[in-house]
Parts: sequence; C-alpha cells; structure tokens
Amino acid sequence: MVFLEDVETPCVVVDHERLLANIRLIQDKADANWLKLCPHVKTHKSLEIARLQMDVGAKGVTASKTDEALVFMAAGVPLITCAYPIISRTKLDRLFAGAREYGPELRLIADSAVGIDALAQAAARNEITPEVFLKIDVGLHRCGVRENDPALVRLARHIVDAPELEFAGLLSHAGQSYGAVDSEGVREIAREECAIMNRVRETLEKNGIEVLEVSVGSTPTVLAAEDFDGITEIRPGNYVFMDLASLRLGLIEKRQVALSVLSSVVSVNPDYFIIDAGSKTLSSDLGAHGAGQGKGFGLAFALQEDAEQREGMTVVKLSEEHGFLERAGHSLAVGDRLRIIPNHACAVVNLTDSLTILGPKGPPLIWPVAARGRVR
Amino acid sequence: MVFLEDVETPCVVVDHERLLANIRLIQDKADANWLKLCPHVKTHKSLEIARLQMDVGAKGVTASKTDEALVFMAAGVPLITCAYPIISRTKLDRLFAGAREYGPELRLIADSAVGIDALAQAAARNEITPEVFLKIDVGLHRCGVRENDPALVRLARHIVDAPELEFAGLLSHAGQSYGAVDSEGVREIAREECAIMNRVRETLEKNGIEVLEVSVGSTPTVLAAEDFDGITEIRPGNYVFMDLASLRLGLIEKRQVALSVLSSVVSVNPDYFIIDAGSKTLSSDLGAHGAGQGKGFGLAFALQEDAEQREGMTVVKLSEEHGFLERAGHSLAVGDRLRIIPNHACAVVNLTDSLTILGPKGPPLIWPVAARGRVR
Repeated sequence: MVFLEDVETPCVVVDHERLLANIRLIQDKADANWLKLCPHVKTHKSLEIARLQMDVGAKGVTASKTDEALVFMAAGVPLITCAYPIISRTKLDRLFAGAREYGPELRLIADSAVGIDALAQAAARNEITPEVFLKIDVGLHRCGVRENDPALVRLARHIVDAPELEFAGLLSHAGQSYGAVDSEGVREIAREECAIMNRVRETLEKNGIEVLEVSVGSTPTVLAAEDFDGITEIRPGNYVFMDLASLRLGLIEKRQVALSVLSSVVSVNPDYFIIDAGSKTLSSDLGAHGAGQGKGFGLAFALQEDAEQREGMTVVKLSEEHGFLERAGHSLAVGDRLRIIPNHACAVVNLTDSLTILGPKGPPLIWPVAARGRVR
Repeated sequence: MVFLEDVETPCVVVDHERLLANIRLIQDKADANWLKLCPHVKTHKSLEIARLQMDVGAKGVTASKTDEALVFMAAGVPLITCAYPIISRTKLDRLFAGAREYGPELRLIADSAVGIDALAQAAARNEITPEVFLKIDVGLHRCGVRENDPALVRLARHIVDAPELEFAGLLSHAGQSYGAVDSEGVREIAREECAIMNRVRETLEKNGIEVLEVSVGSTPTVLAAEDFDGITEIRPGNYVFMDLASLRLGLIEKRQVALSVLSSVVSVNPDYFIIDAGSKTLSSDLGAHGAGQGKGFGLAFALQEDAEQREGMTVVKLSEEHGFLERAGHSLAVGDRLRIIPNHACAVVNLTDSLTILGPKGPPLIWPVAARGRVR
C-alpha cells in the first residue's frame, strides 16, 4: 500500500475501495429486499461516511447518544433515529430543540412507562411530535420488552395514546448474534428475530394497534439473513468497516475488512514483538457486547500486498500504549510496520480523532471522527 | 454528594478531596524515602492535576506519547520524561523542536541500538543533548533489556558514547504487579525490581559506566514497597485516582478511590439493570496490562453517603453504550443513579474530553483532559 511508510503510527487507516464496496454490499441487500436502510453511525461517527451511505440510498442514520444525533442533524441528515432509551429531561430538550431548528424526521425508542412519559412531556414542552418505536428484546436481554411480557400491549398503547407522540412501530437489535458460533448460528438468530417481531406485530394488530415499521439490525444478522419477511427497515453499523467479529463468524473474507490499525514494532524481546498500538488504540474489546470468539485483541499482517493471504500474528496482550505480538517463528525488527485487524472496529474509531483514508492513488485523506466524544 | 442529581450521565466524576489526599499520600512517601517523584500523566492527561502534583513537590511529569509530552511541555512543566521507546524520525524532530522552544529538561528511553541511533541522529539534527535512560525489563517482558542479556553493557555504552546524548541511568516499570494475587505479592515484585535494578547498576559501574538515576514506578509497587534501597526516582500514575486494581490487591480502601463514573439506569429487565455506561465510557479493560483479578467491568454503588460501605453491584457485561448490572436481589428503577468504580481509571479518562470535579461544596468544576487524543 502506498504512503503507509510515511504515516506516523499508531494510525487508524481505512481502505477507501473496501469501504465503498461494503457500503454498496448492504445497500444492494436492502434494495433487493425492499428494506429502508438507516445505518448506525456509532461505528464511524463520520459525516463523510454518512454522506457516502446516503449517496447510494440510505434514508438517514441511527445514533445512540443525543449529542451524536445532533452532529448528524446539524449536518442536514433528513431522518435520525435515536435507538437508545433517552430518559433525561435536559437531553430530550436539547434533542428536540435541534429537531425544531434543523427539521429532520426524528424517531426515538422507549421500553418503559417512565421512558414514554419522559418523551411525551419533552415533546409537549418543545411542541414537536416525534415518532416513537417500542423496543423489543429479541434475545440480547438488554433494552426492550419481551414478547411474552404482559406489559407489551399496554406499553404500545401508552405510546399510541400519547397525543404528543406518534407510534412508529417496533425496533430490535439481535446483538447476541456476535456471540454465535458460526454463520448458520447467526442465520438462526436472524430467523428467530424475524419470527418474534412478526408475532409481536400480530399481537399488537389484534389489539387494534397498527404497526407501520418493523426495524431490525446488526451487521452479522444482516449479512447472514436470507429473507426479511415482515421487516421494513435495517440499521446495521459495523458493516462499513467490518472486523474480526464478522470474520470469525465466517460471514466475510479478509479482503472485505476496510479498517485496520497501522502500527510499528518498537521493541523486540525473547517472548514478544512489542508494537505501538495498545488498549488506547485497539481497545480491550473482545468483540461487540463482549462476545469475542477468538483469543487476543487483533490480527497483525505485514504491509506487503499479499500478506493478508497468510495466517497473521495474534496480538495476545495489551498495555495502554503497547501491544504484545506472539513471536511464533516470525521475524520482525524494531521499526517494522504491521497492519492490524481489530476485534471491534467501532471501539477503535471511538479512540481516535480522525481516520486516514487510503485510496488507490494520491496521498491519504484525513476525515474527522466528527461525533467522537459526544458521550451524552 | 451534592449536585450529582443535576449532572447528565454518563459522566466521569472526581472527588477533589480524595484526589488531593492521594497526591499527598505518594508525595509524602517519596519525600520520606528521598525519592524524586515524576508522576506519569497518561492517567489524567490534565494540566490542572499535573499542577497539583508539582505544587506539593513533583519535579516534573512522565508521558508515553510524543504529543502528550508536548502538551505538558508547552504548559511549562520543567522536567519531562518520555518513558516510551520513540523511534520515529518525525516524532523525535517534533519533540526536540518543542524542547528547544520551551526549554524543559528532557529525558527519553531506549532499549535497542536502532532506538539509540534514532535518538542520537535526531539530537544532532536538532542540536540538543537529551538525557537517555536504558530501559530495563524487570519482569513485564514488554520493553527493556533483561539483566542477563549479553547486550546490556554494550547498549549502556552505546548511549554513553553517543556525543549527542547524555546517559541518564536506568528506568523500569514492574507492570506485572497488577497481576499479583495480593499486597504481599506486589511487595515481592517491588523487592525483586529493586534487586534487579541494583544488580544492573553494579554491573554497569564495574564496567566504568556511572549510573546517576535509577527510576522505577507503578502505583501498586509504590503503594506496597517498604523500602527503595538504591532507587532515586518513582513514576507512578494511577495513584491520583486509584481504581479496582489497587482495591482488589488490598493496597487501598474504597474511600481512597477518587474517580468514578456516574451512570443512570435506562432499562430494567428480568435479568439485568441496564445502565448508560458501556465500553465507550468504562472501557473493556480488565485492569492495567489486561491483568484483571476480579470479574466484570466495574463495581456500582448507590449515591447515598454510606453506600460505599456496602458490597456494590457488579457490571457483568458491556455493550458500547450500555452496561449490564447483575440484579442480585437489588431494587432499582429507570432513572436511578449509580456511581461506578472502574477496573482501570486511566482507560476511562482516555475516553472522555473532560473530568467533572466535585468539591465539598459549590458547583462542580470541569477540567479538560488536555492531552486526550494525542495518540502519536
């Protein structure tokens, strides 16, 4: 790869061609299945990448945090989903003030009476009518109402009956897919999510509640799923970069991984090669939701064009600013450079202020991680 | 604690009284043992906290990264140690240009001929004479020369003989202490480090190389050590905040932990309380150098004055923006707030742009994490 010898390390680099191919891959899958695509921006936090996603057909973006959503809102994204149960009065006031100023379609989620009331009161104070999804727990056991919860219909009706809110439909995230054993395991989780969401929709419709949108989304399930019966929308995030999670699950090939960490060997000892990428660069994440299937914190390759075809060296341990590479018969010297595929690309991007974008020719572009640090 | 109900979550909060007590504790230990204290700023990356450390007697600061060092240099810190083997020509030129502009005493480390040559060439280019420590590996097996390495004397002489460099002495970091079982285990590692450093010094002195400084430092070993025979300087970092690492090792009490993450319950399900602090706030670090001794990613307490006396609830799992708290018979509702002691305070600070400082009265102060994002 050109220019990689001139870039200071550690450095988060993105292969522009692979990035575009990944964006195209999922847009094509969405289009083929008549699905609205609203990618999650927690992965890249980048206005440039959101623009690339919308250029090929994404309808808007999904965000976790209030201040993250506001960055994309201010940049003119026309549809913003905050897929997080926001309960803070001040956050909601800030978000709704932004919605009034910038005018996007704004959608939120709730899974409790307290949460729905917080949204309704903030909507009344700010004189807007946001759309609200009922969050459904399809097995991650994080946020969301379970399909057999006796409160299910009551909570949906609570949203429907709030004059300040518009009921958007159902939303889920099958994050447990990151913990599956293989692609067939992921596919089974995607089928199960689809089945649960359709059953919940039928329950609500039997109770006279119309469900317009059924929104699901995680990169593994979207990659693995063969059909999306009854689903109207997907919200994957990680797919723009990919990482060891999808690779370990057998959902992608190495040549699809667009993001890596460029690192230098800074010391060599009898046990390890020591590199300048530690937990403050690679993160200590084993995978999304802590669901690491392999060992270590990244897979390192030499920079030669064909190095990726070979096995890779495991980053077995991390200090804050050092990584420990297993020597395992390899030969490296102080100053040698490596490209590391991380366990979890979303966590890596969150640790850097900018991405170094490598095209097939010309110097790298520097894209700011615009919404980094918007933690509330 | 006052004002905690008004602060948006998640929020990294620091108890000002505890912070001052921790700074005083280690300065007193340094003074009682006639040691120079050069605290590592990778923990706080804050000019305000470095100032507090120097106000009570710290001689300067230690940094990992070039651009981190430059932030403290530009702020007027008179003695800067880059305790990292910097081999990049451009980084060294930037650092040395800073040293010429701001005029601090500048010390670096090396553990290879390539590293020493890089320092000497950069020093010649920039017409300065930095001090260089030979890094000694005392058991972490990261950077450094081992005491039985046949290259030991040759590398020390390489520094001594370079006309552009001044030989500063020996420097080590017994980071393996984080993986000890208890305080006695840490004390044994501190004794061993001291013994190794004294043996290496004797070897060099027998070969006619004068060793002026012997610099060691990690928070656990500095807390545990009973004497520092032959040591001239310590460089602990974490002690300003403390965290679950020192607590698990039995080196401190809960009332000494100055940093915590304020978080809110955003959802409750039959298995978990879900809070708004995930891996992008708490980090996935199990402890420094990955050496977690307990389970989970943090210990949560209610905000009441006496809550810390009780057992605490474990954060058993993390998504990026959610933490999973074991219900374990506790009763919490959506909107309730908790204070979480993290596994690794240094990793938490690296994820936020500012610290919220809580004094005994008055509104919180906001201190920027000035050197955050200086990753090279």
